[in-house]
Amino acid sequence: MSRADRPSPLRVAVIPDSFKGTLDARRVATAIADGVRRAAGEAQQDIIVDELPFADGGEGTLDAVLAAWGTSAQSCTTTDAIGRPCNAEYAVSADGRIGLIEAAQANGLAAVSDVPLRAAEATTRGVGTLVRAALDEGVDEILLTIGGSATTDAGTGLLRELGARFFDVNGVELPDGGGSLLNLATIDLSGIDPRVRDVTWRIATDVTNPLTGPQGAAHVFGPQKGAALEDVEHLDRCLKHLAEVVAESGGKSLDGVAGLGAAGGLGALLYAFFTVELVPGWEMVSDALGAAEKIGQADLVFTGEGRFDTQSLDGKVIHGVRQLTAETTPMIVLAGQVAVDAEALQASGVTAAFSIGRGPGTLEETAPHTAENLTWTAYQVARLLLTP
Amino acid sequence: MSRADRPSPLRVAVIPDSFKGTLDARRVATAIADGVRRAAGEAQQDIIVDELPFADGGEGTLDAVLAAWGTSAQSCTTTDAIGRPCNAEYAVSADGRIGLIEAAQANGLAAVSDVPLRAAEATTRGVGTLVRAALDEGVDEILLTIGGSATTDAGTGLLRELGARFFDVNGVELPDGGGSLLNLATIDLSGIDPRVRDVTWRIATDVTNPLTGPQGAAHVFGPQKGAALEDVEHLDRCLKHLAEVVAESGGKSLDGVAGLGAAGGLGALLYAFFTVELVPGWEMVSDALGAAEKIGQADLVFTGEGRFDTQSLDGKVIHGVRQLTAETTPMIVLAGQVAVDAEALQASGVTAAFSIGRGPGTLEETAPHTAENLTWTAYQVARLLLTP
Repeated sequence: MSRADRPSPLRVAVIPDSFKGTLDARRVATAIADGVRRAAGEAQQDIIVDELPFADGGEGTLDAVLAAWGTSAQSCTTTDAIGRPCNAEYAVSADGRIGLIEAAQANGLAAVSDVPLRAAEATTRGVGTLVRAALDEGVDEILLTIGGSATTDAGTGLLRELGARFFDVNGVELPDGGGSLLNLATIDLSGIDPRVRDVTWRIATDVTNPLTGPQGAAHVFGPQKGAALEDVEHLDRCLKHLAEVVAESGGKSLDGVAGLGAAGGLGALLYAFFTVELVPGWEMVSDALGAAEKIGQADLVFTGEGRFDTQSLDGKVIHGVRQLTAETTPMIVLAGQVAVDAEALQASGVTAAFSIGRGPGTLEETAPHTAENLTWTAYQVARLLLTP
Repeated sequence: MSRADRPSPLRVAVIPDSFKGTLDARRVATAIADGVRRAAGEAQQDIIVDELPFADGGEGTLDAVLAAWGTSAQSCTTTDAIGRPCNAEYAVSADGRIGLIEAAQANGLAAVSDVPLRAAEATTRGVGTLVRAALDEGVDEILLTIGGSATTDAGTGLLRELGARFFDVNGVELPDGGGSLLNLATIDLSGIDPRVRDVTWRIATDVTNPLTGPQGAAHVFGPQKGAALEDVEHLDRCLKHLAEVVAESGGKSLDGVAGLGAAGGLGALLYAFFTVELVPGWEMVSDALGAAEKIGQADLVFTGEGRFDTQSLDGKVIHGVRQLTAETTPMIVLAGQVAVDAEALQASGVTAAFSIGRGPGTLEETAPHTAENLTWTAYQVARLLLTP
């Protein structure tokens, strides 16, 4: 990129994964950006650097989105999967239009692993509380990440918290949890918070499991939530019955819909009755970050991860970023370890991959210098590309 | 360097030092060139790669010059500093016009360290034999590197071998070695091989010591050649007397000429009576390699060394190559270890420096992979610069 044909300002997108166990994605992005800015300053090159720490709907997603939105976390008091009060954080975009909620902050498995797990009773009510908090901020779109849940209630708790009611044949309201749904006769949405209908729901899921059956929520994910074999079979029957009632109630068919089995069917009832889009986590996050636009416009793209190997090539970071990067735009990978061969590198569409090490040294010796080594290596690459 | 403004063919100069104890400069250059060629092939970019292993007149000079000249070593039988037969190699350029001789192959210290050293009697006759062999090849320029010698005879042995004679006041020919020169009365060059006058001599020396005095050949270098204190003082007197006779005989003045003290004054008499240029080793070698022209024309320059640190910046490789590299031409350093900071890097004029490691690992683990890591890293850099 000689100065002659170099755009000004030069747009640089930095969208790295975390260096697992060493540096989170946000710090990795900042370290790389620092090196690029230094080289640009020396070359008197105007640049715009977008720091877009990578996240895929799992751990680190809230931080990444907050970083990209430039807003600080909202906090509220909610309840966990067994109804105990807890604090949770969520994000609202700078324009106030989008809210991001990590369901696991209210229905997460880790938070309730201090007591015997009761899969049939665990509830998503707390997620409903988080949703209401976001709605109170005036958002018209809710991004929901749903990994790591302790619940198998098909999102009934979430909707109860927002005004829905679930009755048996005798008009008696069912107790919380998925285990009671076998007795479900009527779904009453008359009291639902109208904003639940008005907002757009985007639910991030990277699993394709349907709600019910051998690949469903109960059979695949029930055991890790404390469901014994008989509980698993009971819960699956409950979910199947729920799907029947939903169909009778004029809701969308839940049968075999890929992804509805995630997080104990958390998205199932939302999907049945409201405006819900099920999306891969990385797609949801990159949309929230405006990554597609920022990376698509970039003249230079940096990504990175702790170890760049053949698995990375199918992984979300390299693959996702490459898809968003213009074909002629250099895409550079900075990694603690580079373990691909030339053929794999070419096939990946990665322009060049550099290990950030400054010389021989064990992982123990080099890990503490990850941030400075990232800055240094990005600085070398940028110097190379920005020479007058 | 976008394709638009990229010259075709692209000229790449690869002029690395050796990676001490790991890979000689010739192999380092080839490893780097391999990576650059691979990237150029992928980018369908015509390139001309000049492999110019660095040498400064010391170890590895003959190999480097042979590599650049594309000729194979000439060998001949000569004698060592105490007159024992030995084999030696020298180089003749492809056009047959230039000969390169490493004097130490005939008067080297290492070759005679198996016997008690006798500095006063050690002779450069063997170097004369090597010179005659080169002259017999028809060369009209002789490049002479003179480090690591066992001799302090001011080059009398070399000239005797080529027909000069040295007499005392009684017309008796002096015995070999610098220790007899106190009795020198007459220098008889009548029988000298006429080619000694006709050729151009370029003698490489990186020391500035004069022939005589406290900083002279005897005082500074005598002890390491086995000269005790009294020998040192005797040899210095001998060399001073030689300088007087030279002056009386119409030779150039040897007084205080920087560099004539190198290798026991090996170049002194040549300088006094013939066409001799004393040059820094790196300058002589780079001229022999046509390095100035090749590096000056290069669109991209790679160099490298085992460890790139602040000392490197004053060193011959980085400094010398930078001086020959056009200001706007990227100069890339590939090193086993990069230990400079950003300020030093900028000051050095180096565009970018990369460690060749692929990830964490001790020197013992990584050293065996030096060649492949050089190829890989050069390949990454070239991919970066040659992206369409």
